[in-house]
Amino acid sequence: MRAGPSQEEIRRHNLGALLRHVHLRGATSRAELTTILGLNRSTIGALTADLVTAGLVVEGAPRETGRAGRPSLVVRPNSRVYAFALSVEVDRVRAARVGLGGAVLDRREAARPRGLTAGETAPLLAGFVKEMHDAVPTAAVYVGGGVAVSGMVRREDGMVRLSPHKGWLDEPLGEVLRAELGRDRPVAVGNAADLSALAEHTRGVAVDCENVIFLTGDVGIGAGIIAGNRLISGHGGYGGEVGHMVVNPGGQPCGCGSRGCWETEIGEHALLRAAAREGLTGQDAVFAVVDPAARGDAGAQSAVRKVGDWLGFGVANLVNIFNPEMVIFGGTLRDVYLASAAQVRSRLNAMALPACREHLRLRTPKLGEDAALIGAAELAFQQVLADPLDAA
Amino acid sequence: MRAGPSQEEIRRHNLGALLRHVHLRGATSRAELTTILGLNRSTIGALTADLVTAGLVVEGAPRETGRAGRPSLVVRPNSRVYAFALSVEVDRVRAARVGLGGAVLDRREAARPRGLTAGETAPLLAGFVKEMHDAVPTAAVYVGGGVAVSGMVRREDGMVRLSPHKGWLDEPLGEVLRAELGRDRPVAVGNAADLSALAEHTRGVAVDCENVIFLTGDVGIGAGIIAGNRLISGHGGYGGEVGHMVVNPGGQPCGCGSRGCWETEIGEHALLRAAAREGLTGQDAVFAVVDPAARGDAGAQSAVRKVGDWLGFGVANLVNIFNPEMVIFGGTLRDVYLASAAQVRSRLNAMALPACREHLRLRTPKLGEDAALIGAAELAFQQVLADPLDAA
Repeated sequence: MRAGPSQEEIRRHNLGALLRHVHLRGATSRAELTTILGLNRSTIGALTADLVTAGLVVEGAPRETGRAGRPSLVVRPNSRVYAFALSVEVDRVRAARVGLGGAVLDRREAARPRGLTAGETAPLLAGFVKEMHDAVPTAAVYVGGGVAVSGMVRREDGMVRLSPHKGWLDEPLGEVLRAELGRDRPVAVGNAADLSALAEHTRGVAVDCENVIFLTGDVGIGAGIIAGNRLISGHGGYGGEVGHMVVNPGGQPCGCGSRGCWETEIGEHALLRAAAREGLTGQDAVFAVVDPAARGDAGAQSAVRKVGDWLGFGVANLVNIFNPEMVIFGGTLRDVYLASAAQVRSRLNAMALPACREHLRLRTPKLGEDAALIGAAELAFQQVLADPLDAA
Repeated sequence: MRAGPSQEEIRRHNLGALLRHVHLRGATSRAELTTILGLNRSTIGALTADLVTAGLVVEGAPRETGRAGRPSLVVRPNSRVYAFALSVEVDRVRAARVGLGGAVLDRREAARPRGLTAGETAPLLAGFVKEMHDAVPTAAVYVGGGVAVSGMVRREDGMVRLSPHKGWLDEPLGEVLRAELGRDRPVAVGNAADLSALAEHTRGVAVDCENVIFLTGDVGIGAGIIAGNRLISGHGGYGGEVGHMVVNPGGQPCGCGSRGCWETEIGEHALLRAAAREGLTGQDAVFAVVDPAARGDAGAQSAVRKVGDWLGFGVANLVNIFNPEMVIFGGTLRDVYLASAAQVRSRLNAMALPACREHLRLRTPKLGEDAALIGAAELAFQQVLADPLDAA
């Protein structure tokens, strides 16, 4: 409950709105910006000039329109402004240099032996950042870093409270990376599922949805949940731990200490167990079940269907709780879902209330495996988009 | 993504902020409003004068402060401005006339035979409204009605899509009541759990919480969920159907067509079944189990503990999903929780992730049984609070 904004706050708000628009939607003419932002031409002109001066946008000729007459100039994000996006996954680490506007300008990837601590993982990422930094053209402007981690991340400082399948407990990843990157710019850490949801909602398959659940899976299962166009993350930032919703009280023990958690039925281990490939791990092992299933192998199909049935079971619970327009299946759940869509739908029809599922769409990520990485870049760009002239 | 507000929009925003503050917090001096709203004295004076003219607030002497000197005038909500709040419960209907500021000025209640249709229920409510209306002092101003219903309510028009324990399916309660009340003012219908959550969050036990789950139970179980200070209700308004989260795949058939839904383990029927009182129904039957349990009756205690164990089970799932600061137990769950708090806590400790539950408080409603009714009044006041001069 506070007073209305001052003229200066309104100007900053409008600068952010203009920059965010071209960042997410790409080149836009001044005439279109006038309509979209509801401002007059002279205001758009002044805002654009400020952002050009700050080096955040460029103006130029539009692509060929095929129409006669002098074309209106378009405003584009200046991709010399960039962020580093990092992703710590169970089996690999990835890093990308992402330009304002969302283009991946450079990227690195390495396998990550399971069991590596945060302290051992951070130098790998810092090494990638250094390599990419050395290749950056002069005049490029670094605005910050974003990191996606599958695990419970404390919002305020990027402490990884728990990432059981990496064996991490209270690892100060944010602090370690800030020290390693050491560039006087913020490094923010977020949960991989949350950042994937954010990315698919802002520039992926769910741009027209207000209520979205992004499920991501490897050994563990997590969700990024958007309700009413906002990411919901709970008091400390730990919400979305749907993998520890108990679905089968008589089921397998879970790494969290409980029993029958959803991830014990749909995670990587459950699929490999169902396919009698217990002991194998990793994405390749998952593909070695899902691929034969797609080719008609009966044993593999049976395993995938069993997991797909539990997948639909938990999704039905979430649909009753959230009444979303879209559920997105990411990580290994993408492949499990594609191979067992009939089981998932059947469970939904049996368990989800008709009103809660009547406008529901089930989808896979448009951004593919890059969703979390793109989301990490969005996290890094958040500050410059919120207050362009202050942060640039 | 839109432009900043105009001066007139800022004024309206400030009028709403001032009115909302005194509506929720009561008499406030101009000096305090200056600090709270971050506006200067002359702006507060002008806004107050506008609201006095519109008949929405009154200025007057404060209560005795015991301090010397001339006291500053205080601004109070004008309780001549009122709404009707209605509540359709499984066993009863209630109606109240509620003044701006939240005081219940008049109230009516009647038993409601289970099985009454929406068409048969509406005249009961309309009768109450007529009685209370006839007793209203002249110069009182009616701003609208709010209705709380346990069931799935379509946001746009108040259609009750499903309220299984009333036997309602696609009952146009909003439309029927608008016709019955017929006063040229809006009548909004909301889910009882949502409205209870709203009431406890704005003026009850959860005023300092950003993430709250309000559970309410009778035969069915529902939740009103506030995440990041906002009620989340999903695409069509049907979210929060936590009673149909399946917790026991091998459990009892549920009225929704599924099996082992949470409400089959913690609803009224489950408690009465566990206490070998199957066939009885209603709040009195529930008390006839909970009261002996509180007095030490072993059989009743065993029943309450069994239900309490499942209560904790489902709450743990929700805590992992939402990471809330508070869970509130309303309806018959209030009594079940109070009688089985040890079981609930024990399940939470076993099943909820430490980070998700570390700041969790378990509470009963401060507004007691009136939570949904107060929430319905808040729904009715929403418009006048959003734009005081337009709606008054």
